[in-house]
Amino acid sequence: MSDSDFSMPVRVYIEDTDAGGIVYYVNYLKYMERARTELMRSLGYDKPAFMEEDKLMVVHSANINYRRPALLDDSLTATAVVSKLARSYLVFQQKIWRDRELLCEGEIKVACVHSDGMKPAPLPQSVRESVAAVMDDQQ
Amino acid sequence: MSDSDFSMPVRVYIEDTDAGGIVYYVNYLKYMERARTELMRSLGYDKPAFMEEDKLMVVHSANINYRRPALLDDSLTATAVVSKLARSYLVFQQKIWRDRELLCEGEIKVACVHSDGMKPAPLPQSVRESVAAVMDDQQ
Amino acid sequence: MSDSDFSMPVRVYIEDTDAGGIVYYVNYLKYMERARTELMRSLGYDKPAFMEEDKLMVVHSANINYRRPALLDDSLTATAVVSKLARSYLVFQQKIWRDRELLCEGEIKVACVHSDGMKPAPLPQSVRESVAAVMDDQQ
Amino acid sequence: MSDSDFSMPVRVYIEDTDAGGIVYYVNYLKYMERARTELMRSLGYDKPAFMEEDKLMVVHSANINYRRPALLDDSLTATAVVSKLARSYLVFQQKIWRDRELLCEGEIKVACVHSDGMKPAPLPQSVRESVAAVMDDQQ
Repeated sequence: MSDSDFSMPVRVYIEDTDAGGIVYYVNYLKYMERARTELMRSLGYDKPAFMEEDKLMVVHSANINYRRPALLDDSLTATAVVSKLARSYLVFQQKIWRDRELLCEGEIKVACVHSDGMKPAPLPQSVRESVAAVMDDQQ
Repeated sequence: MSDSDFSMPVRVYIEDTDAGGIVYYVNYLKYMERARTELMRSLGYDKPAFMEEDKLMVVHSANINYRRPALLDDSLTATAVVSKLARSYLVFQQKIWRDRELLCEGEIKVACVHSDGMKPAPLPQSVRESVAAVMDDQQ
Repeated sequence: MSDSDFSMPVRVYIEDTDAGGIVYYVNYLKYMERARTELMRSLGYDKPAFMEEDKLMVVHSANINYRRPALLDDSLTATAVVSKLARSYLVFQQKIWRDRELLCEGEIKVACVHSDGMKPAPLPQSVRESVAAVMDDQQ
Repeated sequence: MSDSDFSMPVRVYIEDTDAGGIVYYVNYLKYMERARTELMRSLGYDKPAFMEEDKLMVVHSANINYRRPALLDDSLTATAVVSKLARSYLVFQQKIWRDRELLCEGEIKVACVHSDGMKPAPLPQSVRESVAAVMDDQQ
């Protein structure tokens, strides 16, 4: 994880585990969303899924690779980096770490749509500017 | 389980389990809600949580007793019986069975509220009549 | 909430909500478990559900009362107090707050059982002593 | 969906939805797993995640594309097809349908690993043969 990556801590509770004794693989997507949410909050956006009254942010695709399982009680770090800023969508690169060990990584494309009909909508201009600024910082 | 109890089958998948190798105890509340939902559907109500445009059905209290754990792959039965019909709420008695073995039982009070402000609202008259009819059948 | 109650912050993410636009009522049980887990961790116990190799801590009953709904993005506080310490079980009083507003409260009985057969087992002596000490502090 | 695809019905309950009023995107992975599980069960394998005592089946990667949201109460169909059978892993092509409308599709790679150490392990021979037979049927 580079120093400029946005990161947040995640603790593994029983709710996150499955009968294999490890974190249920589906739940890493929740950890990733928490990190995206906090990244957007750090830019001044609360409830980033509902950016404006008539627009929603929806996940368009998720590509997840699992490397090592997380265990009950683990103290993890979830990171989120915006790798692409397009007119109506964002792409996030996300990783889940246990100390220096990479457990899981994902690429999540989040699209802005009109809440009425779910057709693509342009990202609000203020969001574009805030995200562009943080992308420059990542360089 | 008496013959007149409304029941539905529930299969345990990995999503339902935890690191103890058993069904995560919180998830029995989901099984119970599925059975309540299907009971209401059998009375002609789809989306019973959203009965009318300005009213919601919300869970007011839940008292759950756990007796035996369910395991991955178990084929369970969830039952739902209306034990009380009041002006603005219903009380359900619910059980989760594995064959003749009672695993979990709960009493769930579900209240009708105005979606604006969440204050108690009278149950729609048609719901009261449908539920009263099924309660007579239970006798 | 009294000053001596154990508490931890909980942020509401989309994963926690339902189509009613509020926190799905089942998920308050997860918030409560996180607070119990952190209370036990503060006493020196990691993975408190698996206290010793041949013993499990399992939820025996949960009585939950819902007062006001939590919303997406809310910053909540979950508290946990041990109200009873018995030979083979603990009872926790738990509350979920949004600032000074009580949203949900629960009484959770957690029993110690032999992992082989799930019969009641005495709580480990060190746990009894640690919990007794924190109960004195609560007075 | 072709006639030879394995399919199972999935009903959307409140537990599956989020504050956007739609199925929480993470939960489609649960629907897909249910279909994989039932496909394996149809081949004679219960608890397919735990095929032999010293082996686990773990999800290695998941690539999900979301097209249209599912709504509360929807009656969906989840399909599962094995598109690749390798020495130590399977690849599944999966789709979620609402009638003739494709809502979500995914490619899930599930690997067989030694439960001790999580290193790749060969799929049990009987599983290879059963899956090969069903893949021929798909042609």
